[in-house]
Amino acid sequence: MQWKVYLSGEIHTDWRKKIADCVQQEGLDIVLSSAVTDHQTSDDCGDRILGAENNLFWKDHKAAKINSIRIKTLIQKADLVVVRFGDQYRQWNAAFDAGYAVALGKPIITLHDETLTHALKEVNAAAMASVRTPEQVVAILKYSITSVC
Amino acid sequence: MQWKVYLSGEIHTDWRKKIADCVQQEGLDIVLSSAVTDHQTSDDCGDRILGAENNLFWKDHKAAKINSIRIKTLIQKADLVVVRFGDQYRQWNAAFDAGYAVALGKPIITLHDETLTHALKEVNAAAMASVRTPEQVVAILKYSITSVC
Amino acid sequence: MQWKVYLSGEIHTDWRKKIADCVQQEGLDIVLSSAVTDHQTSDDCGDRILGAENNLFWKDHKAAKINSIRIKTLIQKADLVVVRFGDQYRQWNAAFDAGYAVALGKPIITLHDETLTHALKEVNAAAMASVRTPEQVVAILKYSITSVC
Amino acid sequence: MQWKVYLSGEIHTDWRKKIADCVQQEGLDIVLSSAVTDHQTSDDCGDRILGAENNLFWKDHKAAKINSIRIKTLIQKADLVVVRFGDQYRQWNAAFDAGYAVALGKPIITLHDETLTHALKEVNAAAMASVRTPEQVVAILKYSITSVC
Amino acid sequence: MQWKVYLSGEIHTDWRKKIADCVQQEGLDIVLSSAVTDHQTSDDCGDRILGAENNLFWKDHKAAKINSIRIKTLIQKADLVVVRFGDQYRQWNAAFDAGYAVALGKPIITLHDETLTHALKEVNAAAMASVRTPEQVVAILKYSITSVC
Amino acid sequence: MQWKVYLSGEIHTDWRKKIADCVQQEGLDIVLSSAVTDHQTSDDCGDRILGAENNLFWKDHKAAKINSIRIKTLIQKADLVVVRFGDQYRQWNAAFDAGYAVALGKPIITLHDETLTHALKEVNAAAMASVRTPEQVVAILKYSITSVC
Amino acid sequence: MQWKVYLSGEIHTDWRKKIADCVQQEGLDIVLSSAVTDHQTSDDCGDRILGAENNLFWKDHKAAKINSIRIKTLIQKADLVVVRFGDQYRQWNAAFDAGYAVALGKPIITLHDETLTHALKEVNAAAMASVRTPEQVVAILKYSITSVC
Amino acid sequence: MQWKVYLSGEIHTDWRKKIADCVQQEGLDIVLSSAVTDHQTSDDCGDRILGAENNLFWKDHKAAKINSIRIKTLIQKADLVVVRFGDQYRQWNAAFDAGYAVALGKPIITLHDETLTHALKEVNAAAMASVRTPEQVVAILKYSITSVC
Repeated sequence: MQWKVYLSGEIHTDWRKKIADCVQQEGLDIVLSSAVTDHQTSDDCGDRILGAENNLFWKDHKAAKINSIRIKTLIQKADLVVVRFGDQYRQWNAAFDAGYAVALGKPIITLHDETLTHALKEVNAAAMASVRTPEQVVAILKYSITSVC
Repeated sequence: MQWKVYLSGEIHTDWRKKIADCVQQEGLDIVLSSAVTDHQTSDDCGDRILGAENNLFWKDHKAAKINSIRIKTLIQKADLVVVRFGDQYRQWNAAFDAGYAVALGKPIITLHDETLTHALKEVNAAAMASVRTPEQVVAILKYSITSVC
Repeated sequence: MQWKVYLSGEIHTDWRKKIADCVQQEGLDIVLSSAVTDHQTSDDCGDRILGAENNLFWKDHKAAKINSIRIKTLIQKADLVVVRFGDQYRQWNAAFDAGYAVALGKPIITLHDETLTHALKEVNAAAMASVRTPEQVVAILKYSITSVC
Repeated sequence: MQWKVYLSGEIHTDWRKKIADCVQQEGLDIVLSSAVTDHQTSDDCGDRILGAENNLFWKDHKAAKINSIRIKTLIQKADLVVVRFGDQYRQWNAAFDAGYAVALGKPIITLHDETLTHALKEVNAAAMASVRTPEQVVAILKYSITSVC
Repeated sequence: MQWKVYLSGEIHTDWRKKIADCVQQEGLDIVLSSAVTDHQTSDDCGDRILGAENNLFWKDHKAAKINSIRIKTLIQKADLVVVRFGDQYRQWNAAFDAGYAVALGKPIITLHDETLTHALKEVNAAAMASVRTPEQVVAILKYSITSVC
Repeated sequence: MQWKVYLSGEIHTDWRKKIADCVQQEGLDIVLSSAVTDHQTSDDCGDRILGAENNLFWKDHKAAKINSIRIKTLIQKADLVVVRFGDQYRQWNAAFDAGYAVALGKPIITLHDETLTHALKEVNAAAMASVRTPEQVVAILKYSITSVC
Repeated sequence: MQWKVYLSGEIHTDWRKKIADCVQQEGLDIVLSSAVTDHQTSDDCGDRILGAENNLFWKDHKAAKINSIRIKTLIQKADLVVVRFGDQYRQWNAAFDAGYAVALGKPIITLHDETLTHALKEVNAAAMASVRTPEQVVAILKYSITSVC
Repeated sequence: MQWKVYLSGEIHTDWRKKIADCVQQEGLDIVLSSAVTDHQTSDDCGDRILGAENNLFWKDHKAAKINSIRIKTLIQKADLVVVRFGDQYRQWNAAFDAGYAVALGKPIITLHDETLTHALKEVNAAAMASVRTPEQVVAILKYSITSVC
């Protein structure tokens, strides 16, 4: 069985690549997906496709609604959602994705440093695991698919 | 018809009280609810009821799971969820509640300063309104219930 | 058992009042509801509550999203939805409500003149009855509740 | 991942063909579908398959119910629904499809001229994007699938 | 807790009255409901409310769709459905109600003579009990509500 | 797109074979399925696999529960359900399947002689078409898949 | 808001009474419910109402199906399910109720001695809290309803 | 059509292998799946992947939550769940899986010795069959897929 895993959250470090590399090395039958991770493109997609907005609220709104097509569709198709929280930025979209996934009955794994444990306690209460490294994410995926750990 | 409204997010300012006062002044048939808003009690409920934990992760985990009983039950019963984001703290639980409510098909209203607009664009994309003051929240509730604005 | 009936569509004739009067005369235990039926208020609610928009698209968008809080909440709570189509205006919102209600598993009744039969054939295919007068709507409600016709 | 996109609405212009051509040029992995778009066949399918009706209401009813098998099945399987509104005809079936898709949790995109913005405000309030040209529809699909725009 | 019980099937014997009398004697907090049980009214409701049909298929169709408003609404609200099969008539509507209720997750009880056991084996496979008398129906209801038997 | 069609009801005539032949002649991409249609095997499967029962009620019960594994699984996977009612036998299982399918949101087509129209009015009220011949079933399937009729 | 709490599991100790007494002392607005807790009545209800069975499997089956009407109905209506595991008996019905409640999205609390922790790890993984005493159950309910602990 | 069958319960006998062998001999198109069946690995997966816990409750909790990713995902994808209860151990996880599967609408088959019939009566009340041998499980699967028994 192929597993579909959605990677939500932080876009300024290479955690997605580390997971992808590790999945490949382990030879796991997993399809990874995520939101558009190019910051500028993600912010400007509304203006580029539908025309520029003067009002910044609506510029953001237009872009975010378009982005939600990809995000919600992929989360709905995913078997599992990994949510990465980093030190910087507020990343409310990551927490929003987590709540959205949980309400759909999807298992989630959070990936974050120990310093964020207290701030993430409500999200972790709904997670099946809270890990510190991308390698641990893949270890759980490998175990879930192959029974080996 | 009585409306049930859940108030999620920031616990360090008096926005909940302002909404409650305003609802009362307008004589609206609304039942407001929210998570436990006493910070210390919310953090310590697990230790107090089930016994102290040495490990901080599990202390938080135990408390957050107990808190989730109230939170999820009330969100599921709510007709509408208001989510407040303030300047301080990370408030990932508020964004988590927002995602959870949206996936359940509940309309949400966000309440935040204009400075947070860009950071909240994904949450606002799923909201029915994004407002700046508690009075605006009540104006929308009043309009939704009484047709007057 | 009390029935909840949502009245969707045309706002420029007095069909809602006729139904309400007839329900009262028959002494039926029905709670009627509908969207905000004051045209100006419905169009301007976004500007009035959240502040004026220069861009007409966003003015409409803001208002329509606020109106959707009331509309979707009431349709979800309704046991039955009556959808009225008149000769004037495009009334796409009425047809949208009809599709929304049908997908939620709510029975719908359409109320329209015979001249609109062909244009409404897809909506009528999903309706439990297609009637010509408000009195017929109430006759069906009365029959459904009291077994008398 | 292959995306399934249902094209609802206007059948008298070539917007479906433009989208199909554009999808092919971009090499996107999309399966497009739609209702039967031959007007006469769509109107007469009931009579042709089940026998002629004298009463026009029932002729329409029989045809519309048969057409609904294809329409509802394809919308239920779709990842996204595009709804086209033109200047002519009432197109209540397009708005009905939009409401039906939204209640099923499908993202919708509306395609219409700027002159229809006010009349479509309720439908647009539930849409992820409102566009003016078939090329814009495909730009959103391309972006949602490939992250490029 | 009040229980809602829908009584489906045979309309030519007094089994509904026996159940109602027995419920009253036992003082159980049960609301009983059923379809319109006057045969002529049930058959003619479409013609009476919407106008006469020449074609018998459409006369039946119109009536049956109107009747379905009451039937489906009451089954959806019921906690339990009792389905009565008699010796006469085909009673496909009773079996249809049974399948409809089971798919909604409602427990069903069948009430029929032993001679019908083989013909009803598929319906009984989905029933929580198959009984021979109205008194047994009430005995199960009493036991389910009061724990006494 | 491949369509999955479940054929429910009468097992003593060759209507299933006629549909299968006609589907093949038309070259339609349809997978047909049905319950076990060998009467004796269907009745005895419980005794054969689990051991003989003295009590006829339980013999039937055991068999019918085993048969329901196949029936419910296939109906749940089907895009459309055809329900055949013949002159003989009570065929309550066919009507039960119809109600079950309708509650799951599956479109159904009934196949029966005109003499059964009145007895089947409730089932037909929930059907997308009521036809007289297997060829008409396939004509609707062909039209739904290929747009040709 | 009134909370509905279902108490599942062990019937040979007085844990239900302790919870009920404690709820009353605290003045909490909670409706407690449970399966029929008289062992003999629960085992014999099928025979008493429907007639005696020789075969013990079917005697149990008949009784268990009747009991399931009460159990499933009350769990479905509950806001929260408490599941008690004792030292004696296998109590598979308690674990079954737990799995059933979790799949319906109900929060569960387990009540058991520390010696059972390892054997219950899968059930506890899905529970919002695992407690040792009836008083702790009520402490969580009190906290969830009144915010006090 | 390929069937997906999840095998839950006892891990200390070779019943899974017997089913797998028998499925292969019969040439059935079935994909079998189950939880991780190596006892030590299943117990220690949390410690191995996320680091050792001193507290045994949390060690179990961490492991059980990780195991639940595989278990719930596979049950959700399964067409049918077989639940094996043996003489030893409490196997509450098997009964939990059974309740979970039933609430999701999955058919279940129980596999256990006759001595356990009374203890399993509530689980069997929700099962489509209760069998004594792995060969009987496969006989039901074969019959459900091929109509032969």
